[in-house]
Amino acid sequence: MMDDRIQLWNDIAAQIGVDSIRCTTEAGSGHPTSSLSCAHLLSVLVTSHLRFDVEDPKSLANDRLVLSKGHAAPALYATLKAIGAISDEQLLSLRRFGSPIQGHPAPVPEMPWIDVATGSLGQGLAVGLGMALAMRLDGTGGRVFVLMGDSEIAEGSVWEAMEAAAFHEVDDLVTIVDMNRLGQRGPTMHGWNGDLFARRAQAYGWRTIEIDGHDVAAIDTAYAEAIVADGPAMIVARTEKGHGVSFAADQDGWHGKAMSQEQASQAIEELGGIRSLTVTPPSPPDIKPLVLGELRAEPAPVYTEPIATRKAFGEALAWLAGHRPDLVVLDGEVGNSTHTDDFAAVAPERFLEMYIAEQVVVGAQTGLQALGKTAFAATFGAFLTRAYDQVRMGAISRADLRLCGSHAGVSIGEDGPSQMAVEDLAMFRALHGSTVLYPADGTATVQLVSAMCDLPGISYIRTTREATPALYETGESFPIGGSKTLRTGDDDVVTLVGAGVTVRESLAAADALAPDGISARVIDAYSVKPIDADALRRALEQTGLIVVVEDHRVEGGLGDAVLDALAEGGPLTGRVIKLAVRDMPGSGTPDEMRAWAGIDARSVEATVREALH
Amino acid sequence: MMDDRIQLWNDIAAQIGVDSIRCTTEAGSGHPTSSLSCAHLLSVLVTSHLRFDVEDPKSLANDRLVLSKGHAAPALYATLKAIGAISDEQLLSLRRFGSPIQGHPAPVPEMPWIDVATGSLGQGLAVGLGMALAMRLDGTGGRVFVLMGDSEIAEGSVWEAMEAAAFHEVDDLVTIVDMNRLGQRGPTMHGWNGDLFARRAQAYGWRTIEIDGHDVAAIDTAYAEAIVADGPAMIVARTEKGHGVSFAADQDGWHGKAMSQEQASQAIEELGGIRSLTVTPPSPPDIKPLVLGELRAEPAPVYTEPIATRKAFGEALAWLAGHRPDLVVLDGEVGNSTHTDDFAAVAPERFLEMYIAEQVVVGAQTGLQALGKTAFAATFGAFLTRAYDQVRMGAISRADLRLCGSHAGVSIGEDGPSQMAVEDLAMFRALHGSTVLYPADGTATVQLVSAMCDLPGISYIRTTREATPALYETGESFPIGGSKTLRTGDDDVVTLVGAGVTVRESLAAADALAPDGISARVIDAYSVKPIDADALRRALEQTGLIVVVEDHRVEGGLGDAVLDALAEGGPLTGRVIKLAVRDMPGSGTPDEMRAWAGIDARSVEATVREALH
Repeated sequence: MMDDRIQLWNDIAAQIGVDSIRCTTEAGSGHPTSSLSCAHLLSVLVTSHLRFDVEDPKSLANDRLVLSKGHAAPALYATLKAIGAISDEQLLSLRRFGSPIQGHPAPVPEMPWIDVATGSLGQGLAVGLGMALAMRLDGTGGRVFVLMGDSEIAEGSVWEAMEAAAFHEVDDLVTIVDMNRLGQRGPTMHGWNGDLFARRAQAYGWRTIEIDGHDVAAIDTAYAEAIVADGPAMIVARTEKGHGVSFAADQDGWHGKAMSQEQASQAIEELGGIRSLTVTPPSPPDIKPLVLGELRAEPAPVYTEPIATRKAFGEALAWLAGHRPDLVVLDGEVGNSTHTDDFAAVAPERFLEMYIAEQVVVGAQTGLQALGKTAFAATFGAFLTRAYDQVRMGAISRADLRLCGSHAGVSIGEDGPSQMAVEDLAMFRALHGSTVLYPADGTATVQLVSAMCDLPGISYIRTTREATPALYETGESFPIGGSKTLRTGDDDVVTLVGAGVTVRESLAAADALAPDGISARVIDAYSVKPIDADALRRALEQTGLIVVVEDHRVEGGLGDAVLDALAEGGPLTGRVIKLAVRDMPGSGTPDEMRAWAGIDARSVEATVREALH
Repeated sequence: MMDDRIQLWNDIAAQIGVDSIRCTTEAGSGHPTSSLSCAHLLSVLVTSHLRFDVEDPKSLANDRLVLSKGHAAPALYATLKAIGAISDEQLLSLRRFGSPIQGHPAPVPEMPWIDVATGSLGQGLAVGLGMALAMRLDGTGGRVFVLMGDSEIAEGSVWEAMEAAAFHEVDDLVTIVDMNRLGQRGPTMHGWNGDLFARRAQAYGWRTIEIDGHDVAAIDTAYAEAIVADGPAMIVARTEKGHGVSFAADQDGWHGKAMSQEQASQAIEELGGIRSLTVTPPSPPDIKPLVLGELRAEPAPVYTEPIATRKAFGEALAWLAGHRPDLVVLDGEVGNSTHTDDFAAVAPERFLEMYIAEQVVVGAQTGLQALGKTAFAATFGAFLTRAYDQVRMGAISRADLRLCGSHAGVSIGEDGPSQMAVEDLAMFRALHGSTVLYPADGTATVQLVSAMCDLPGISYIRTTREATPALYETGESFPIGGSKTLRTGDDDVVTLVGAGVTVRESLAAADALAPDGISARVIDAYSVKPIDADALRRALEQTGLIVVVEDHRVEGGLGDAVLDALAEGGPLTGRVIKLAVRDMPGSGTPDEMRAWAGIDARSVEATVREALH
């Protein structure tokens, strides 16, 4: 019986290895040797431990596998073939144009068995942590397996996830280190020193198991030990890159190289030839339907007095907590600044404190949303730069990441440039399918936060540290892609376009210009992406001059968004002036900083007067 | 004698505490309690261990202090007062507009005693590592002290630096953890569990020393033990936030809060009143002048055949290695892809392998340049997103960071979107004072890499995976801010603006249009920022239509740079069409991917025909 299982595990492993070679040789590129090192680990996992319904891959009852070492994609696809998810023909379309079998795993619609994109190393563990947290919230009893490479352990993001997993005491998270000792350029830092990886993991509070990663019985035992509910576990598996292939095994110089036809033939023969076995993974347990508890349905917060949009953001989340049991919020230990603390106060079990570790904030968020959670994360906008790669991979993961960056712009004042988000609009605009929002008052904030709950893709809301005046009536709607024209007249000679804190400055400038008969249209471009192109084109056509005012660097932000929208509309006629941050800020009061940057009301006014002179 | 020293250390510590309170209360904001926790640590350091010439702060003979917990800036400024670097009046200008005494430390010209900006947590140790590496290269025997907070240890970037420092066996790097157990929101994850921090550091190969961080004699002993040349050392100092002030010591709720006048008066009294002591730090040792060795002066690489610009980048570095002994190159374990391996082959002692850990790559680079090194760092452009916060802080540090992102755009082909840099131009353009370069051929690459050696601020060069044809003669010059007009005629009816790989596509499109009498100007905008605004304005004026073609997302890249340059010039008349990546790529050949994105020659040609129809 045991012998039969060992035979099956080894056969499936050989098949995974052979198929990894076949598809990469067919493609002419890819990572066969990185696949061979983890073939046994994957074989035993899907044959005997990963409880997974291939027909219902999105079921919350399924265990999850995250291939953090995304370059071993061939092994993952070969594994999907081995469990009957994809055909041999599909497998052999690896890396071809239009194929969902991409060079690195991506959860394109045709690949429902893949939850997240990988390929930027060191990110899988945080994603797995998020999945484990989602499973715990839902009480599914699911398990998450994250397969890492040894090279990627140098990434700090791994240790953020190690720390957070131990702190949150997740039981059902297992990471396997495929320690094949060879990186892209040559030997890794630590070779086969598995004790060292284990010691570190232990110092983070993890259980560890060290094994030979090609000994299927040992692998089986390790998985069984790892999934005992007693904190997260790391399996350090000593492996060989190119294992089982005489000319490639444990040889340097084979990273990211497909074998030639001749090499492949020999390798496949050495591995026992082509197989077409199919195994059915263990069945997932029945899970209880989610018990949602009592939902509150209090009315939305109402603001008639000045309030900081960051505070309105927190209050909006707290309000939504009662309507949306799927809502979870992640914090980078600044919840009292971003005001996610307001959410924590009403839904502490759905508030996840990740401490000062922005990469695991966004990584875990990606895992949470993959399992159906509506996940918000917030920190200072400046510090979201720390997680830009995670957000970028979130976009490739087709993840719905709802992000808030507080303390936008030079308007934070005294704290100085290290705390000022002045590149965030550029950063988020550049992502595929992103939505970028920048409300000017509390009412707009609440409406936009509410809308974000149902937005696909990466959505970003930018909030302001200081209080801003109430501009809108309760009940006003703020469609994504819309804008608000706050002042307009038949004789407008200029259009002032602001967002967030510069809406107030634009209005004040319009007030100052009015007595001299200079009629200024004022547009609140709260939706920076998509932007209200129609309103902007009309404005340029009707007023001939647009002044865009933003508390952000001059590159990539609102001004560029306006220019882009205007250019998309066809030939340009008119003038666009951008007022934005053009120098390196220091400290000062918010008013001083805006005046210094030339984005306060007086600067706007002076710019208009000069342009119309 | 020892009693006198203890008295002095305690007096200076009290002065640092009092001055931290005074300046923050005067400013009405800031972090006095985070300053009080490290006052003794700073006092003993500058009084007895930091060998530092206050009159010559940039001397390479000086030891270095990096305040990684940048929010304790008041303590740093108070320390600068205590060593006679700044006056009490300057100290009290903290956080005022125009003052160099900013809310967080920044090396503005008036603050030569500060080497780098801090305030985004977890970054100081990597910077310190870079400094230690520079000192080792120069043989100065200097020492680097990095003062960290305990909250910031959650940042993965800290552990990247721990790993790299141990790997590189730097002896002269000491980090002090100011373990005051209170973060911004409340208790840290691990409180006063110093053993835990020590155990982790040991698991990374560091020596550790645990002390009471308010016991000056113990601190003195710890520094003496730490600077023994036997690998990097961590001092875990148990401290109290707000130490010495009855109502604030070890109390939650005091983060980032200035005391009222009354509170300050009481606190100052408890700390023994205002002092105006000055101590002179130990003198730095004499250092030997750098021995540069024999310089090679080989001619620059010449390219007449197609070559990948990434390869030309590596060869340019290898060439420059012989001329520039100050040149160092950092790699994120992809040197065989970015071709920094070519530099490693000729100057292995100046090639710093940081493995797959982009944050410490850029952090260490910041430290290296602070001590006079001309430091290049390279990885895939996509993975520079991982270090965006470090680059952002580099800009605030006035650091000269020379970065190369390889594998630009969808043109990498089969590897798929996780490896494609399509947001990098947006990311780098948005930084203050940055230079963004994107050469189309090998000759341009060599010239631009050479120019980068002398460029201040953040400079970024984007390279292409595949070979591109030789466009330029050897000896052609490529001024920063310039462009090359490759095709032009009196009857140009359209201008094609490309950069990098799209220059070739634009030329091919122009060739295809010519037989139909459609004369297309072609501009190689190799300098994306600053961009050649004059050439672009002239082109719009003369041809009426500009088509910008870029292998980058449509937001924030070359197209936006062109629009911005045009808008800056005054009223716009004409049409600008942007061809860029607008959807989520998958895998395919480079040609297939460019066709899919609509940025290949045929797409350019079709766009022009339609626009002119």
